[in-house]
Amino acid sequence: MTDQTSNAMWGGRFAAGPDAVMEAINASVSFDRRLAAQDIAGSRAHAAMLAATGILSHSDAEAIREGLLTVLSEIEGGRFEFSPALEDIHMNVEARLKEIVGEAAGRLHTARSRNDQVATDFRLWVRDQIDAADAGLAALQRALLAQAEAGADWVMPGFTHLQTAQPVTWGHHMLAYVEMFGRDRGRLADARRRLNECPLGAAALAGTGFPIDREMTARELGFDRPMANSLDAVSDRDFALEFLSAASICAMHLSRLSEELVIWASAQFRFVRLSDRFSTGSSIMPQKRNPDAAELIRAKIGRILGATVALFTVMKGLPLAYSKDMQEDKEQVFDAADSLMLSLAAMEGMVRDMDANRTALEAAAGHGFSTATDLADWLVRELGLPFREAHHVTGRLVAAAEARGCDLPDLSLAEMQAAHPGITEAVFEVLGVHNSVASRKSYGGTAPDRVREQVAAWKERLG
Amino acid sequence: MTDQTSNAMWGGRFAAGPDAVMEAINASVSFDRRLAAQDIAGSRAHAAMLAATGILSHSDAEAIREGLLTVLSEIEGGRFEFSPALEDIHMNVEARLKEIVGEAAGRLHTARSRNDQVATDFRLWVRDQIDAADAGLAALQRALLAQAEAGADWVMPGFTHLQTAQPVTWGHHMLAYVEMFGRDRGRLADARRRLNECPLGAAALAGTGFPIDREMTARELGFDRPMANSLDAVSDRDFALEFLSAASICAMHLSRLSEELVIWASAQFRFVRLSDRFSTGSSIMPQKRNPDAAELIRAKIGRILGATVALFTVMKGLPLAYSKDMQEDKEQVFDAADSLMLSLAAMEGMVRDMDANRTALEAAAGHGFSTATDLADWLVRELGLPFREAHHVTGRLVAAAEARGCDLPDLSLAEMQAAHPGITEAVFEVLGVHNSVASRKSYGGTAPDRVREQVAAWKERLG
Amino acid sequence: MTDQTSNAMWGGRFAAGPDAVMEAINASVSFDRRLAAQDIAGSRAHAAMLAATGILSHSDAEAIREGLLTVLSEIEGGRFEFSPALEDIHMNVEARLKEIVGEAAGRLHTARSRNDQVATDFRLWVRDQIDAADAGLAALQRALLAQAEAGADWVMPGFTHLQTAQPVTWGHHMLAYVEMFGRDRGRLADARRRLNECPLGAAALAGTGFPIDREMTARELGFDRPMANSLDAVSDRDFALEFLSAASICAMHLSRLSEELVIWASAQFRFVRLSDRFSTGSSIMPQKRNPDAAELIRAKIGRILGATVALFTVMKGLPLAYSKDMQEDKEQVFDAADSLMLSLAAMEGMVRDMDANRTALEAAAGHGFSTATDLADWLVRELGLPFREAHHVTGRLVAAAEARGCDLPDLSLAEMQAAHPGITEAVFEVLGVHNSVASRKSYGGTAPDRVREQVAAWKERLG
Amino acid sequence: MTDQTSNAMWGGRFAAGPDAVMEAINASVSFDRRLAAQDIAGSRAHAAMLAATGILSHSDAEAIREGLLTVLSEIEGGRFEFSPALEDIHMNVEARLKEIVGEAAGRLHTARSRNDQVATDFRLWVRDQIDAADAGLAALQRALLAQAEAGADWVMPGFTHLQTAQPVTWGHHMLAYVEMFGRDRGRLADARRRLNECPLGAAALAGTGFPIDREMTARELGFDRPMANSLDAVSDRDFALEFLSAASICAMHLSRLSEELVIWASAQFRFVRLSDRFSTGSSIMPQKRNPDAAELIRAKIGRILGATVALFTVMKGLPLAYSKDMQEDKEQVFDAADSLMLSLAAMEGMVRDMDANRTALEAAAGHGFSTATDLADWLVRELGLPFREAHHVTGRLVAAAEARGCDLPDLSLAEMQAAHPGITEAVFEVLGVHNSVASRKSYGGTAPDRVREQVAAWKERLG
Repeated sequence: MTDQTSNAMWGGRFAAGPDAVMEAINASVSFDRRLAAQDIAGSRAHAAMLAATGILSHSDAEAIREGLLTVLSEIEGGRFEFSPALEDIHMNVEARLKEIVGEAAGRLHTARSRNDQVATDFRLWVRDQIDAADAGLAALQRALLAQAEAGADWVMPGFTHLQTAQPVTWGHHMLAYVEMFGRDRGRLADARRRLNECPLGAAALAGTGFPIDREMTARELGFDRPMANSLDAVSDRDFALEFLSAASICAMHLSRLSEELVIWASAQFRFVRLSDRFSTGSSIMPQKRNPDAAELIRAKIGRILGATVALFTVMKGLPLAYSKDMQEDKEQVFDAADSLMLSLAAMEGMVRDMDANRTALEAAAGHGFSTATDLADWLVRELGLPFREAHHVTGRLVAAAEARGCDLPDLSLAEMQAAHPGITEAVFEVLGVHNSVASRKSYGGTAPDRVREQVAAWKERLG
Repeated sequence: MTDQTSNAMWGGRFAAGPDAVMEAINASVSFDRRLAAQDIAGSRAHAAMLAATGILSHSDAEAIREGLLTVLSEIEGGRFEFSPALEDIHMNVEARLKEIVGEAAGRLHTARSRNDQVATDFRLWVRDQIDAADAGLAALQRALLAQAEAGADWVMPGFTHLQTAQPVTWGHHMLAYVEMFGRDRGRLADARRRLNECPLGAAALAGTGFPIDREMTARELGFDRPMANSLDAVSDRDFALEFLSAASICAMHLSRLSEELVIWASAQFRFVRLSDRFSTGSSIMPQKRNPDAAELIRAKIGRILGATVALFTVMKGLPLAYSKDMQEDKEQVFDAADSLMLSLAAMEGMVRDMDANRTALEAAAGHGFSTATDLADWLVRELGLPFREAHHVTGRLVAAAEARGCDLPDLSLAEMQAAHPGITEAVFEVLGVHNSVASRKSYGGTAPDRVREQVAAWKERLG
Repeated sequence: MTDQTSNAMWGGRFAAGPDAVMEAINASVSFDRRLAAQDIAGSRAHAAMLAATGILSHSDAEAIREGLLTVLSEIEGGRFEFSPALEDIHMNVEARLKEIVGEAAGRLHTARSRNDQVATDFRLWVRDQIDAADAGLAALQRALLAQAEAGADWVMPGFTHLQTAQPVTWGHHMLAYVEMFGRDRGRLADARRRLNECPLGAAALAGTGFPIDREMTARELGFDRPMANSLDAVSDRDFALEFLSAASICAMHLSRLSEELVIWASAQFRFVRLSDRFSTGSSIMPQKRNPDAAELIRAKIGRILGATVALFTVMKGLPLAYSKDMQEDKEQVFDAADSLMLSLAAMEGMVRDMDANRTALEAAAGHGFSTATDLADWLVRELGLPFREAHHVTGRLVAAAEARGCDLPDLSLAEMQAAHPGITEAVFEVLGVHNSVASRKSYGGTAPDRVREQVAAWKERLG
Repeated sequence: MTDQTSNAMWGGRFAAGPDAVMEAINASVSFDRRLAAQDIAGSRAHAAMLAATGILSHSDAEAIREGLLTVLSEIEGGRFEFSPALEDIHMNVEARLKEIVGEAAGRLHTARSRNDQVATDFRLWVRDQIDAADAGLAALQRALLAQAEAGADWVMPGFTHLQTAQPVTWGHHMLAYVEMFGRDRGRLADARRRLNECPLGAAALAGTGFPIDREMTARELGFDRPMANSLDAVSDRDFALEFLSAASICAMHLSRLSEELVIWASAQFRFVRLSDRFSTGSSIMPQKRNPDAAELIRAKIGRILGATVALFTVMKGLPLAYSKDMQEDKEQVFDAADSLMLSLAAMEGMVRDMDANRTALEAAAGHGFSTATDLADWLVRELGLPFREAHHVTGRLVAAAEARGCDLPDLSLAEMQAAHPGITEAVFEVLGVHNSVASRKSYGGTAPDRVREQVAAWKERLG
């Protein structure tokens, strides 16, 4: 059967059929079947256009369009037999269509080629993924906003270098991720807009002499316009690379949040408790409550970045127009998209379920001289010290407190004044963590009022 | 001196200064000095704002702003002594400022931190690079358009799999790259828009209690608005990753064009002659005319993609807010930006200078049965054959021609009719390469008229 | 059923079972089932050791070992029902074992953990792949040697920068790849040696208090020794990264050979004709003979390098010992190994089948002043010119020939002597391509005799 | 001057000199000057061989060899003026040599080319780096061993998923890294062995007709043998890729240790105190003790992996023999090697200086039911329970303890027996952390005796 079907595809010219190795390396239907719905939508739009422009009879077009729906329902119903000998999804669909509608099926491929067909299918598929990722990101933003709203004034340590730096609020920290995922959505929206041009009608690479109407097929498939250069249309995989790049940045954000969750869930931090739903046990250590979901999400950047590198490497140095190398584009994008969607869903669930340990957060916020900056700022503001000098005075006080094994508020006024005689009782007002966060009212700052403003703004934006 | 200067930075607390290894791994001034102009612009805006909000006296602010201009002129004039012991560009500038304006310099760091300072500097620097890359891309597009205009109707082989597929026009091929570089500009413009928010005022990570005006500094530095979350402001390097990703896609396009130039310049193809200015000789083979510039540009995707992978890997799994790992961001971006600019300039020069060998192109276009598709289309259009059957008939005629060692137009009508009795003399009209390209008039197709329309449209767009 | 089976695994502690998202991101049995044979071999060795050391009764051990064979035959026969709720291959096998042998199955997991179990399985799997890759590489070397032997004295152009540089022999060019693939085998052999230590007995991470015999399990499984540190044993994935790195280098070699095949198969070069078995046609261009297999192999470096980057990124910054991130290791290695094996097989077939076009090779070898170096060397040798001066003289002669539109041997003696008066008739002897290659007799040089020596040496080495 | 010097290099043929852009993209002397010592060593060996084989007079050879030493001393003394117009280190050295020794310099380039010359230089440079990295790794192993010896019996938590799993010993944890860095040394040694073949004498790509002695130059430069195929000799960059791959794995190990140090140095863990020498302060938060060195080392894997990806991408799909793309090899390897050496030195210093907080480690080791596995193992061993059942019983006891807010040893015997009636007083013996680690005596286990054995073995191995 191999020979016959490959004959059916490549004409009568090849003496020998491809052997098993060749079929294994060449056939793509094991993965490109995921483009079935897009392939059929594209073919239906093409058939309608061929009829509208008189290239195909209306009755043939109608038969084809109906037949394609039948094929689609067979595929969606799991009743379709995919054949590797027919290489790809396009030939599998067309061969089955021929069985259903007869000779007319052979007219569908007029004025197109597998090159523009697959480019169209793949764009449609990536577009769907962008829409799905956008929805997943919005859901994750909502989960983070719910945390931010609940904890707008919960105090926690703000870290740099994983060292306590200054107190911040839980809500503020959650909102930082809302911003990141918001940028991810912006990147995806830009990628979608740039992607949304239709390659169909580019044919193999040079366009066609048939009087086709590319505006019509573009419109029918929801594209903004046809692509302006047929060589580019079949050679371009920018849309896939741009999606992968945006997905990689998003996965990087997810890896940072996951890292924080893993650290926060440790016995030493105990900042959060992850729900049973997103933790697992251990086969040998019954007491473990492992943040497996967070770790798996943290790892997904590897997978997505790997896919990105893979496709860049594939595309490097390919002459125009289509080269078979480009068949390697799909599995990478499929895998990256699956990984992204799954990570977004799991992260949303984890964030929604997690319990912040308000007591542990607040206790940690006060350790480590976390209001030293507030002290230094007080010296600048109240005593008029240049910042660098205030910094030195504060450093001496921290050293004094460290030597005594106490925190800054535990120093006496006399000890304070030993470092700088101008210090007064008023200084103690800025040394508490609640005062500290409340004072940071600059736009974008960690003060609870600022956090609530941002929560409100984001809720409105998210609808 | 090391101990003193590091004391100057970190306050009086550290017993031992960092040793040589630590200085080597920690100091960044050997590279971040490239941010000098941006750093000084940021500091000048910050000083003006501190004065406008009453945090700093107007006289101090003026002294600082003037002093910073002096520092800048020293740096630009090569008269500035950078000190690794002062770690980074920020401390180097501030230390020199102190020498110039005295104590007031110490007040400049009020209500900011190196964390928001470097984030601001780096955004400004990347923004400048985006603008430069956009200009470089526009120049390259113009060079390609000049080629496209001159050769709108020159016929050449269109390749798939580096096999002759169908004739196309030189102008059409050049325009494919104009499209690609146009998308690159779109990506950079989107990245610029997203980048263009100001981190200044985020301070270390929590915002500040000083009554600063972030809108003012943002405006002064040409940003659209201040960033909305101070933790995010100091933790975010999306703008660098997005720039690197866009640069990688652009470098991929450049690698494809370079590959074509290398192949086209071979003795076997002889499609183009590169100018002496962009070729080199060989130390041992005097006759060589090596497309070195094309090869070097082809290789740059390695460097730029490598930088992209590097920064993604660095950012993976970093908890908020600032971690020192992020100091690794700059060299990667500097190197990638330099590589991109140089590649764009070299490619523009190469394209501008190159001579297409019109004779060789046209001769090659006619080989390899390149109008077989035209024949198949004729069978569909004129004889009403289904496409797949037309394909079979064409395949038999190609086999016949190949067996006879001739091309399709050299077959006799009788030979034609042996494959399909309906074929008439009229078929010979579509078998010439000029007829072939002229016929492909679909939107985006390779017909010279279509090419000229696109050239005109792009010229208007490029101004 | 989910709750029950997860209860079975994690003990009675979790109130809620993992939901669908968690199962989707957490379960690995969809891919780690490929470790089934290794997992069962490892368990059988473990059971034998437990019995030998008296930890398990001989009857239990025998039942377990027999039961595992039954499980294996069910899996190999396609009669095994994998359950995602049971997470991974280990639990799937164990659950089925329990059905077969009852309570004794529960004793198998004594003194081990899934952490050392999966590390053992995965090492065994990678070791098998290394052996398979070595065999594939040897077969490919043999195919290249056959080409080298047949064409030991066929002359072709040696290129630098894809410009004709000097004539070389076909056999010499084929042997260059034999060398590359030989190094690949060396790298794999080194990786195998380093990998070949047994993690079993490390248990979860700390070793065990049971009196196990790690030497025995190591020996049974063909390892050279047990690993010396239990924390390292469960945390280490170097063997996977080293395999991936070696595979990436091999894939790079394959991409270079593929690129050459694609270029050589072009109508402009016509250096080789690929067999029908490894070429494909086109759906719209019946005359095409596309080197699809070569293009697909060329692309595989993307996939393999992408997998390498993925795993490096996953492993970056993971604290000891096991983290769930490491579950991402397997799919990357599986995919890279599959891609490598398929590429090696396809390349071997392509090389074995391909016909070098001896006429075209020789004709091309003589073009482009390819014996200019021979001329320069003659000037050095016979006239005693310093190399740099000989180079200049040769440059002038090439320029003269180029101006006249002829090749070097076509210049008259008078024209030669105009460039340097000392030139004699004897110079013409070195200007032919056969003389040129025959003269390059330095060790490793392109002279046919040298090529035949190398072929003989490699044939002996390959057995 | 540009034109003249480029004329000097490429002969008299090029009408126009390369312009500024071309020079900027083409010249390599700004970085390949780092090969100066290797280049001169290679040239000296070549000259000696040319004299020994009679190709060059002994007096010329002596003049050249002496002159090269002069050049070297000028370069090492900083008195050498590098000229970008002379492109690369080879031409810079040769031009200066000519000034020193006159015409004879022109004879040095007999029977070689820049292609084999740079391949030789670069191999020598990488070989030196391998030796340096090996020494750096050995020093780091010694620092880790010193920690392991001191803390062979200090108890700390062993983590999986950053959750306390089982107690381990500090020495055991340190030894895990000794193993990793030991494998790194093995990989580098293998790479060195494979690298250690000499390309010199391959000339441009085809070998040479001069009667050279490649064994002699190989021996003189410390290579094991000459490379066996001249095309391969100038095309191969495996040695660079293999070094980069090995460096990436080593950098991954360093990133893991760094991550642990960053986490351990946090206020929440306080497992270690890093020395002042390898910590830094903050410009705004005087109390910070930032693990900057650890963070910077953690980030270096980005840089090194990025370089690896860069060179793989460059090499992808390059036809034989030399292409100019390969000039991009050096900067990547230089940067990766520098990053590796610096990271090794900084890590060694950090490890040597760091103070483990024995009290904090031991306190943490006992939390989180870390001896649950010991309990489960006791149930298996003493009561004969199947492992899975023992696991369930243990899970119930952990739940009971958790509900009571106590640890396992705090449960009463009655509470124990409620979970399983067979439990006796003896169970309490295995629930202490010291008992736990002491019991894990399996080979490679965490028991202090095992640790001391490994320390002794490694000390002997390290000499």
